[in-house]
Amino acid sequence: MQKVQPRILSGFMELLPPDQILFNQMRDTIRSVYEKFGFLPLDTPVIEYSEVLLAKAGGETEKQIYRFNKGDNDLSLRFDLTVPLARYVSEHKEDIAFPFKRYQIGKVFRGERPQKGRFREFYQCDIDVVGNGELSLIYDAEMPVIIYNIFKQLDFGPFVIRINNRKILNGFFASLNLTNEASDILRVIDKIDKIGQEAIRKELSEMALDSAIIDKILTFINIKGTNDEILVALEKMGVKDETYLLGVEELKEVINHLRTFQMPEACYQIDLTIARGLDYYTGTVYETNLKDYPALGSICSGGRYDNLTGYYTDEVLPGIGISIGLTRLFSQLKDQEIINSERKCLLDALIIPMDDSCVNYAIELASYLRQNDHKTDIYYGMKSIKAKMKYANRLAVPYAIIIGTEEVANRTLTLKNMQTGDQESVDFANIVDKIR
Amino acid sequence: MQKVQPRILSGFMELLPPDQILFNQMRDTIRSVYEKFGFLPLDTPVIEYSEVLLAKAGGETEKQIYRFNKGDNDLSLRFDLTVPLARYVSEHKEDIAFPFKRYQIGKVFRGERPQKGRFREFYQCDIDVVGNGELSLIYDAEMPVIIYNIFKQLDFGPFVIRINNRKILNGFFASLNLTNEASDILRVIDKIDKIGQEAIRKELSEMALDSAIIDKILTFINIKGTNDEILVALEKMGVKDETYLLGVEELKEVINHLRTFQMPEACYQIDLTIARGLDYYTGTVYETNLKDYPALGSICSGGRYDNLTGYYTDEVLPGIGISIGLTRLFSQLKDQEIINSERKCLLDALIIPMDDSCVNYAIELASYLRQNDHKTDIYYGMKSIKAKMKYANRLAVPYAIIIGTEEVANRTLTLKNMQTGDQESVDFANIVDKIR
Repeated sequence: MQKVQPRILSGFMELLPPDQILFNQMRDTIRSVYEKFGFLPLDTPVIEYSEVLLAKAGGETEKQIYRFNKGDNDLSLRFDLTVPLARYVSEHKEDIAFPFKRYQIGKVFRGERPQKGRFREFYQCDIDVVGNGELSLIYDAEMPVIIYNIFKQLDFGPFVIRINNRKILNGFFASLNLTNEASDILRVIDKIDKIGQEAIRKELSEMALDSAIIDKILTFINIKGTNDEILVALEKMGVKDETYLLGVEELKEVINHLRTFQMPEACYQIDLTIARGLDYYTGTVYETNLKDYPALGSICSGGRYDNLTGYYTDEVLPGIGISIGLTRLFSQLKDQEIINSERKCLLDALIIPMDDSCVNYAIELASYLRQNDHKTDIYYGMKSIKAKMKYANRLAVPYAIIIGTEEVANRTLTLKNMQTGDQESVDFANIVDKIR
Repeated sequence: MQKVQPRILSGFMELLPPDQILFNQMRDTIRSVYEKFGFLPLDTPVIEYSEVLLAKAGGETEKQIYRFNKGDNDLSLRFDLTVPLARYVSEHKEDIAFPFKRYQIGKVFRGERPQKGRFREFYQCDIDVVGNGELSLIYDAEMPVIIYNIFKQLDFGPFVIRINNRKILNGFFASLNLTNEASDILRVIDKIDKIGQEAIRKELSEMALDSAIIDKILTFINIKGTNDEILVALEKMGVKDETYLLGVEELKEVINHLRTFQMPEACYQIDLTIARGLDYYTGTVYETNLKDYPALGSICSGGRYDNLTGYYTDEVLPGIGISIGLTRLFSQLKDQEIINSERKCLLDALIIPMDDSCVNYAIELASYLRQNDHKTDIYYGMKSIKAKMKYANRLAVPYAIIIGTEEVANRTLTLKNMQTGDQESVDFANIVDKIR
């Protein structure tokens, strides 16, 4: 028969089991923290009407969409989880209680030109709180607290959540009469970590800003220090713009709330260069970096938006959210050897019957272990003991339980610790506690 | 602004949070049983090369595929999890240990004409064991044991796993010189539960079978009784075909293994009418029914196949697997009111501060509860106490924790059981145990 070469598309992540176990553990950790903070699960369709998904999109986003016709329908695959959320709350606003806290963990699709660290299909792990008309500023502090809880648990080393407020940026540029240029300038500033200060100056001068203005912009984004020092410096800037002053007020309040949450100060830092490329943010914005691995870029980002649902409804539904791009994060952590799946195994024990006559006893033992919440498997293949142990080794199982005729006769088992190589005889009745 | 009507496509399931919680609990139960039996997680791409996914497909399947071009690539969305598994094991056979036990829980896509109970996007929860060259018949018994463990835990009432062996069917038809007609006849027989015996007779006679043959077929598929009675009757049929005899031998062995696994006899039943429409099954096949709801049809099906990977590799990789169509199952169970999400809530408690001055204490309390693994939220909105309690009610939260100035002063809290309405004062330090 003519064979088809088994392969997948580039830009799609598919893992071997040990990596998949590790990936799922990370995903489960994220989910459990989201649930602990009261977020409700949501699972929107992968395929939606293009008209609905692309209500807001345009430019680069639209080019990346997987879009196609089926029957009479113009369809697209979701490219993020935020637009489906906006559609969902607009559609179901009578059926949900506000503030609506939801999480969604799922794949999204972007047909980008594949390059290292970029994926065409990737997991996003999102939370958002959506209010009806109003939304407490305390949520702006809750987001970093959630990020903190996740990354503390995931244990990739020290991290810092960088916080800014778009109102400060927008107000600052308004005070320079650069409101129309603001979003372009923000886009340039957003790259400061990647391209450095001089390149920023160069790009800004190419935008026909005079050097006094550029100096002011650079002075502003260079305000550094502790969170309190930065707040003081922002007030001392003498900017009279109301949006600016409101932004400073909000930022101060968020920092205060973070102290109430008892966030360790080392884990969050006001950073006036954070703008987030996306147009829809209107208040607090976040990025998160691993301190020991700055090259990874932001591993968790988000912010507040006033009106994401404007394309679907007249009601004002402000929200705030964060997103973890798990596929990219996992891939980077693996590349940097920050995570390691070498001995990843879900099983507690693999039972190895020496021959056919031991299988019934092995099944009895497996049933007993499973009833007591031990993940257990049996190797049924009738190969040599060497081949059987090799299988146990490849699975990286912590314990092998070897069953020969003697064990069957005495209702015992031989327990082998696969890491130390130690072996001991254990009574059937004692095995549950022995491997707990 | 011109609004886009927020809506999704028909044939796509999207749930409100209480239903989603219930759905996820079912999915988690299935996953945990799969893992307890040693299945490894897999997560293949949603999008694959059409050439790869459709290597085997044709006819009805191919018409249903979501297929499109992006750049130079001819792409399709996966329509099941079995073909991606076949591709995966062929592609990675050097990197995985055989027997390879994997589970995959994920969405698949079929652009069918939508009708009640049919979905275009739906979850499949699959397990398969794939061997390299050989695969113990004990796995044929392990599958029903896993089905049993899942549906016992899901608790939808009594169920029966119906078991057959395709070799018995194929051999029986060979003995009647109907090998070429066998798959057509099997397709007819497969409908017996839906259309009844007389309709089957009619359809078979339309296939130009003479009535003596039809009588034999009906006699055969009407063999009833206990599992042991059926096995005896099959041996007494006097069919000499070797495939038939091998099938009876296999079936007998599977039933014996099920007894070793101590499966309750009431939960499995040999049923010679089970054929499964799919062509690739070659041995044991299963269907599962809820005894009290026969109209639901099979809620978990599967079987053994000798060579699913033939399109990708010359190596013989036999397998056996089962699948639960969770989206359809959930939808049917809801419709029949077998499941109910009315009081579904993930939160253990919702903290309600009476006014702004109580928020800091509320945050302190929430942090303490979360640290002790209680899912906890705070209602920050500054509405009336009535509105706040209404929110707690809509969330169906088991406990509301009300914080007023007195509670703050005394470091206590007012705990309200939302189901009984009972209220009591509790010390801060005692709350963790109180709501456990």
